[in-house]
Amino acid sequence: MISVEAARARILAPLRATEAEVVALSEAWHRVSAVAMPARLTQPPHDVSAMDGYALSAAAGALGATLRVVGSAPAGHPWDGALGPGEAVRVFTGSVMPAGADAVLVQEDAALDGDRLTVGQAVQRGRHIRRAGQDFVQGDGLVPAGRRLNARDIGLLAAGNYPWVRVHRRPRVAILATGDEIAFPGEPLPPGGIVSSNSHALAALIRSAGAEPVVLPVAPDDRAALAMAADAAARMDMLVTSGGASVGEHDLVQSALGERGLTVDFWTIAMRPGKPVIHGRLGDVPMLGLPGNPVSSLVCAILFLLPSLERLSGLPGDLPPVVPARLAAALPANDHRADHLRATLESGSDGTPVVRAFARQDSGMLRALALADALILRPPHAPALPADATVPIIRLDALGL
Amino acid sequence: MISVEAARARILAPLRATEAEVVALSEAWHRVSAVAMPARLTQPPHDVSAMDGYALSAAAGALGATLRVVGSAPAGHPWDGALGPGEAVRVFTGSVMPAGADAVLVQEDAALDGDRLTVGQAVQRGRHIRRAGQDFVQGDGLVPAGRRLNARDIGLLAAGNYPWVRVHRRPRVAILATGDEIAFPGEPLPPGGIVSSNSHALAALIRSAGAEPVVLPVAPDDRAALAMAADAAARMDMLVTSGGASVGEHDLVQSALGERGLTVDFWTIAMRPGKPVIHGRLGDVPMLGLPGNPVSSLVCAILFLLPSLERLSGLPGDLPPVVPARLAAALPANDHRADHLRATLESGSDGTPVVRAFARQDSGMLRALALADALILRPPHAPALPADATVPIIRLDALGL
Repeated sequence: MISVEAARARILAPLRATEAEVVALSEAWHRVSAVAMPARLTQPPHDVSAMDGYALSAAAGALGATLRVVGSAPAGHPWDGALGPGEAVRVFTGSVMPAGADAVLVQEDAALDGDRLTVGQAVQRGRHIRRAGQDFVQGDGLVPAGRRLNARDIGLLAAGNYPWVRVHRRPRVAILATGDEIAFPGEPLPPGGIVSSNSHALAALIRSAGAEPVVLPVAPDDRAALAMAADAAARMDMLVTSGGASVGEHDLVQSALGERGLTVDFWTIAMRPGKPVIHGRLGDVPMLGLPGNPVSSLVCAILFLLPSLERLSGLPGDLPPVVPARLAAALPANDHRADHLRATLESGSDGTPVVRAFARQDSGMLRALALADALILRPPHAPALPADATVPIIRLDALGL
Repeated sequence: MISVEAARARILAPLRATEAEVVALSEAWHRVSAVAMPARLTQPPHDVSAMDGYALSAAAGALGATLRVVGSAPAGHPWDGALGPGEAVRVFTGSVMPAGADAVLVQEDAALDGDRLTVGQAVQRGRHIRRAGQDFVQGDGLVPAGRRLNARDIGLLAAGNYPWVRVHRRPRVAILATGDEIAFPGEPLPPGGIVSSNSHALAALIRSAGAEPVVLPVAPDDRAALAMAADAAARMDMLVTSGGASVGEHDLVQSALGERGLTVDFWTIAMRPGKPVIHGRLGDVPMLGLPGNPVSSLVCAILFLLPSLERLSGLPGDLPPVVPARLAAALPANDHRADHLRATLESGSDGTPVVRAFARQDSGMLRALALADALILRPPHAPALPADATVPIIRLDALGL
């Protein structure tokens, strides 16, 4: 058995980011930038007014002074003359400052009578003007490589004049459930069979991480079906299997996929739920074999698959955020396996989340899992903890998991 | 001027959830359930073994007893006989328990010689058996109406035998940027013009909320273009405009859209950034007019548009999560407008986030906004606060914003 951390490191080690592709900026939300993107223009491109009002020379803007309004410069229609002495131009937020103007008299401080403008409050040179390049100058870095693009990044790239962006291709991940006893929802069930939930739960998790799930047909426990699935996975960035870990099955899976170039790196991880995790390669394709048990499968997917998807997407490959929470009730000491307790969250009096482990941690209880808000991380040999102690948790609710 | 809270209540009041549509379970992640979905079958459907081992009668499983193995029941292939006295059947995790068996001898405690099985540890009746319906019984509630479906819900609905699910249609939201001075990235810029960032930033925000953005062409400041945009919005669930709030512009927008049935509910909100927010209806379509300034636009979108998208999606219409954080530095008292300070986050010694407001809160600084991790919420007339005081924040990083 190896530790969770060692397993994660070994799973991540061979993974490489997918190559870059070009997508429209409008399709780039939540994608990962493949290159640094510097500004392609200067913003604002000119000195512009930050207010509605009048552009003038500061020297002519003393309290009580009068000026003549000689033009108007709505945003998008610069006034292309040059101001003479005692002249002003009507401007609006975003209007280009006319030549000869270095101050703005804001509208509330101006009295207008025909084209005659009276200054109600002395102007200050440069006030209410946004300087060319105040936000950014052509060539300034806007977005680095390897960033998951959020809505603000998309706005910034638009302002920096990017119609297209280079991002890492979405990793394509094949999901293969195996077993004679399972069927997909709505399909005829074999005798004593159950409806497979792992493929669709994993597909949702893969989608949540911005990758593209490819759900393969369920492979019954026979050599030909498994070999066909292996061929289907050959063009993928990763193959995730579910089940096939019970005694007779994993022998079959190993031997059937062995003919297609399966090499297995390790078998068991010192964790609960989810001890039997397979890691290896099927030819060129990294493979992760998750337990068939739905709760174990999801926990292992969070610990190993999510970081793998990150790494394939061009990110470092971190665990989802681990945050502190206070225990609602005492916990017993842990044994030698890292434990991941399903728990609900309440809001504590000071806002720190308070976490309560389910009394029953049965890994067969899918409905209970759906009610959990968080996993409490219990390292190997963690000591017993009293109520109110702080523990690390992974919030499931916030992850769309 | 009205308060942020009153504005939000008035914006939400007329909004109704979109009707239901049917989508494949594999497309349902992050969608909102339109009906409660009870289990369509019982899970597990029969008593099943929770371990690899041997099914037997507890009465025959004393320490040192010997039994005869009369069959094997791999998962998906139930053994359809009935156990006689002194008989056992090979079972695996998930195997249906044969008639006459009420205990499981786990593999590690069994010694097998041909078909002769010796009990190495006395069995307990019912131990290592998952009872029919232990997870859920047909008719049990799996997912309520009005829930955003996460990966676990998808797994649970699969296990409950749902190939298709009824979810609210994604709200379609038209985005209209107005102004002679703006162009989309990569398009020819008018003199003194700037590249529009709001449409694409808002589209990304709308996408992050699970809704469908429809980006309309930029409408120049003329009556015909605005009327055409109004017609394009007629089939949408909401129209969001950006800009058109400067003096001459909003007169034009109001008068052009007035011909298409625009009614305006209010104009200004006691907040910063983002005072000029328009709310109304264009015919049947709810309309939200956001400021043209990109920072104001995003802050207003978080406060008003995200809850609106929630409401249209079949959810209550809550603000994004507001969580506590500790101040890295003192803050001055606030004036009568609710303020939303852009800030960075650090991790405090006890794990509570520590938040640091940018020294310069210029709403024209899009690049600074992209570097912010959070908004600090400052209510009207909030008192000055020392460093280490606790303040409410909205985390932008966690929202994909």
